[in-house]
Amino acid sequence: MSRFRNLIHTSISSIRSSTTCKPSHHRPFFHMPISHFTTSTKSTPSTLPDLFSSNSSVLGPTEPNEKPRIVVMASGWAGCSLMKAIDTNVYDIVCVSTRNHMVFTPLLASTCVGTLEFRSVAVPLHRIQPVIDSTPGSYFFPARCTTIDTDDHVIHCETVTDGSGSNTLEPWKFKVSYDKLIIASGAEALTFGINGVKEHAIFLREVSHAQEIRRKLLLNLMLSDVPGISVEEKSRLLHCVVVGGGPTGVEFSGELSDFIIRDVRERYSHVKDYIHVTLIEANEILSSFDVRLRQYAMKQLTKSGVHLVRGVVKDVQSQKIILNDGTEVPYGLLVWSTGVGPSTFISSLQFPKSRGGRIGVDEWLRVPSVQDVFSVGDCSGYLESTGKQPLPALAQVAERQGKYLAHLLNQIGKAGGGHANAAGDIELGAPFVYKHFGSMASVGSYKALVDLRESKEGKGLSLAGFVSWFIWRSAYLTRVVSWRNRFYVAVNWATTFVFGRDISRI
Amino acid sequence: MSRFRNLIHTSISSIRSSTTCKPSHHRPFFHMPISHFTTSTKSTPSTLPDLFSSNSSVLGPTEPNEKPRIVVMASGWAGCSLMKAIDTNVYDIVCVSTRNHMVFTPLLASTCVGTLEFRSVAVPLHRIQPVIDSTPGSYFFPARCTTIDTDDHVIHCETVTDGSGSNTLEPWKFKVSYDKLIIASGAEALTFGINGVKEHAIFLREVSHAQEIRRKLLLNLMLSDVPGISVEEKSRLLHCVVVGGGPTGVEFSGELSDFIIRDVRERYSHVKDYIHVTLIEANEILSSFDVRLRQYAMKQLTKSGVHLVRGVVKDVQSQKIILNDGTEVPYGLLVWSTGVGPSTFISSLQFPKSRGGRIGVDEWLRVPSVQDVFSVGDCSGYLESTGKQPLPALAQVAERQGKYLAHLLNQIGKAGGGHANAAGDIELGAPFVYKHFGSMASVGSYKALVDLRESKEGKGLSLAGFVSWFIWRSAYLTRVVSWRNRFYVAVNWATTFVFGRDISRI
Repeated sequence: MSRFRNLIHTSISSIRSSTTCKPSHHRPFFHMPISHFTTSTKSTPSTLPDLFSSNSSVLGPTEPNEKPRIVVMASGWAGCSLMKAIDTNVYDIVCVSTRNHMVFTPLLASTCVGTLEFRSVAVPLHRIQPVIDSTPGSYFFPARCTTIDTDDHVIHCETVTDGSGSNTLEPWKFKVSYDKLIIASGAEALTFGINGVKEHAIFLREVSHAQEIRRKLLLNLMLSDVPGISVEEKSRLLHCVVVGGGPTGVEFSGELSDFIIRDVRERYSHVKDYIHVTLIEANEILSSFDVRLRQYAMKQLTKSGVHLVRGVVKDVQSQKIILNDGTEVPYGLLVWSTGVGPSTFISSLQFPKSRGGRIGVDEWLRVPSVQDVFSVGDCSGYLESTGKQPLPALAQVAERQGKYLAHLLNQIGKAGGGHANAAGDIELGAPFVYKHFGSMASVGSYKALVDLRESKEGKGLSLAGFVSWFIWRSAYLTRVVSWRNRFYVAVNWATTFVFGRDISRI
Repeated sequence: MSRFRNLIHTSISSIRSSTTCKPSHHRPFFHMPISHFTTSTKSTPSTLPDLFSSNSSVLGPTEPNEKPRIVVMASGWAGCSLMKAIDTNVYDIVCVSTRNHMVFTPLLASTCVGTLEFRSVAVPLHRIQPVIDSTPGSYFFPARCTTIDTDDHVIHCETVTDGSGSNTLEPWKFKVSYDKLIIASGAEALTFGINGVKEHAIFLREVSHAQEIRRKLLLNLMLSDVPGISVEEKSRLLHCVVVGGGPTGVEFSGELSDFIIRDVRERYSHVKDYIHVTLIEANEILSSFDVRLRQYAMKQLTKSGVHLVRGVVKDVQSQKIILNDGTEVPYGLLVWSTGVGPSTFISSLQFPKSRGGRIGVDEWLRVPSVQDVFSVGDCSGYLESTGKQPLPALAQVAERQGKYLAHLLNQIGKAGGGHANAAGDIELGAPFVYKHFGSMASVGSYKALVDLRESKEGKGLSLAGFVSWFIWRSAYLTRVVSWRNRFYVAVNWATTFVFGRDISRI
């Protein structure tokens, strides 16, 4: 493969030197032969060997004298913490993902209402692992994996070109050979098969979702003031409904009520009495938290004007949702956050599965039925044979699994087992053990919950209020992966405190 | 009108108090009657008088005992500087615009490559004029004006709902009565009727354009590294072509070359040799500048790797442009910045026009053929009868016209001429006089041009280099309208200097 790469590079340089016009600094303007464009285009086919025919859309297997290649599928918490900790002297890294950044998901809710900028919660991959795209053999490919061929150690991918204009390339298929494959493609938002959720609700899992929520919220605020709108429509437009009372739903509701209390009342005073937030949950809100904290959260949310409703959604229509008891809830903005389940891609894989349909892994996070395949994060769970329950779909689980697996792979690589089918008798050491560090959730108005118990039944510190909120902010700030983002988050928080939230709809 | 408003407000409060369930803080969770939604929805039509039938989509004329209403069409430099300086004790302000923020256009080019955040160059309207949306009688409507009825002092508008999801309202039409109308809707990018420009090129006039350029540039960078791409395609994808050598085109080329030199070479080292910038101009670049500065700019751009080409574009296709001499220029990103001309809306208006098809105004910026209509900024120009040339389409012209007109209107309003058809014999004072403060343009690599001559033929200071760049930055920083944005721009510049540019594609 390296020879192949060299061959390409040589050919490229020869083309470039023959066709590119190197600007001379002292030559006067416009004396450059602009015909070099046409020349370049026309001459390329004849000077270039046919390296890039259909069968060259392959990043082929590594040679024994090359570094082994780790292929990481996706760039979420698990994949990124793994890539960060991989010893790049031992391995090359190829990341296949639809986005070139990691999203700091716990702070995503704050971006919808302008407390934080979108850029502050997106950490570019090169800040997580600088070798990607900058050293030979390590790449980022903007693509999604479609199938895995474990016999040949190859994944099949297709490029993603969404959101681009008309004159970009059509998506194309390519293959990447791996020595070690890490499936860390995460989970998908659960809709429980309810009609209309995917069409009308917005999830809160990607920066693009937060952007959509923000644009819609601000547009609704602006439209609700235009002559010709009925009182009914105005109330509907400004009714924000959140379905799902987990940490994401609660934090988003809290941010929204902060936004309403602090910013809407002052700046959109014509419509301030029409805007309302309703949080719908079928069971308890924040069910993983201590009962005392749950009650505190409920009280706090209610106090900030969030309307808490126990209900089960039956049907989602374009302007209203219908609950099981027949109640109709008109809405202008619907955010859906009822937990996650296996994605279509994960379900399509023919590996043994854990409870809940995730990829089944053993205690070393290997997919035991095949060679050199591992899985971490929300898409994986312990096989029943391990006698363990799948771990919760949390950022802290994913992050620690990624880190553990990176160290395991580093160790395997250093022992000479980095290449495909070479890790046979290497001692793996201790299996992955998850220790829960506690849970946190903000509930708006400078209040948060911190539950430091190891399990739901365990004992330990739990607290709520301003001190928790301070812990919540500090803890998240230290968890933000790059210094640049950390700096920006701190600046954003300070600016919001001083100037209020930004409401430009861009 | 105020009575009408009161009537609505009273009706609304009675509905609200009868149907909204005010949460009690001590009541336990989920005891709230969730059926209030259905009740509310169903009861509204019966309790509400039919205030909002089709003919109520009107913001009717002001009464003599109310403040007169200034309607400002659009929120660019001219409209915003006017709104900022209007005495809100004298007038109510209604702004009709497709965006709720002003764009600090001179810094827009810097956002495409991540030197600045998008939010830093967007100034929300409420920071420019806080009364809008927060005091009765002053509004912002997200809409575009379709026709003007000068006899009845009414504009016809249609809401804009672009970019929102499926469950928002359909656009609707409404009317706004004005006492004074300010047409400040700007100009449109010129395409000279060249086929394909609108379909394939990106202009650089709105934040959305900068976002599109950024997304495309980063996607092209990422895609150019994926297996299966040919060398030809790679060179094409990474060829950025800028058409138009005015300040915008030059500054964008400079930013792009800075981005390539400082960020691409380091972070995308696989593809760094393929990325190129070409600037195509039919005449001289920066033709309004001193000849010495022009030469400096050309030298500087060439030194940073920008390929300067004199040529006339004949045809734009999806992956290449064709010049007049038949040269084909393949591109991956095409930015079009060849100046501006009258928009379709301005052309459709039946007012006398100035040279170049702008709305003709007299020396007090009035549209003389009708009562109470004024026009400022790029959409207006002196009538030939004034004996003056239309002023250049520059931010500084628009800004100063807006400010002048605000003072004129304040004076008219204080003299009792604020209402429609009431300004008959009020003394207007001195006409608008434009004094050119000079021109600036950055050319990348911490270099800029500053031309302080009053006219092209005049004498005065002109300088180029790092000192100019420093002046350029400082001058722009002080011109940024809000303190919040000023703070963010400064933080962005500092961050870019320390950490480099952000390359997350969100």
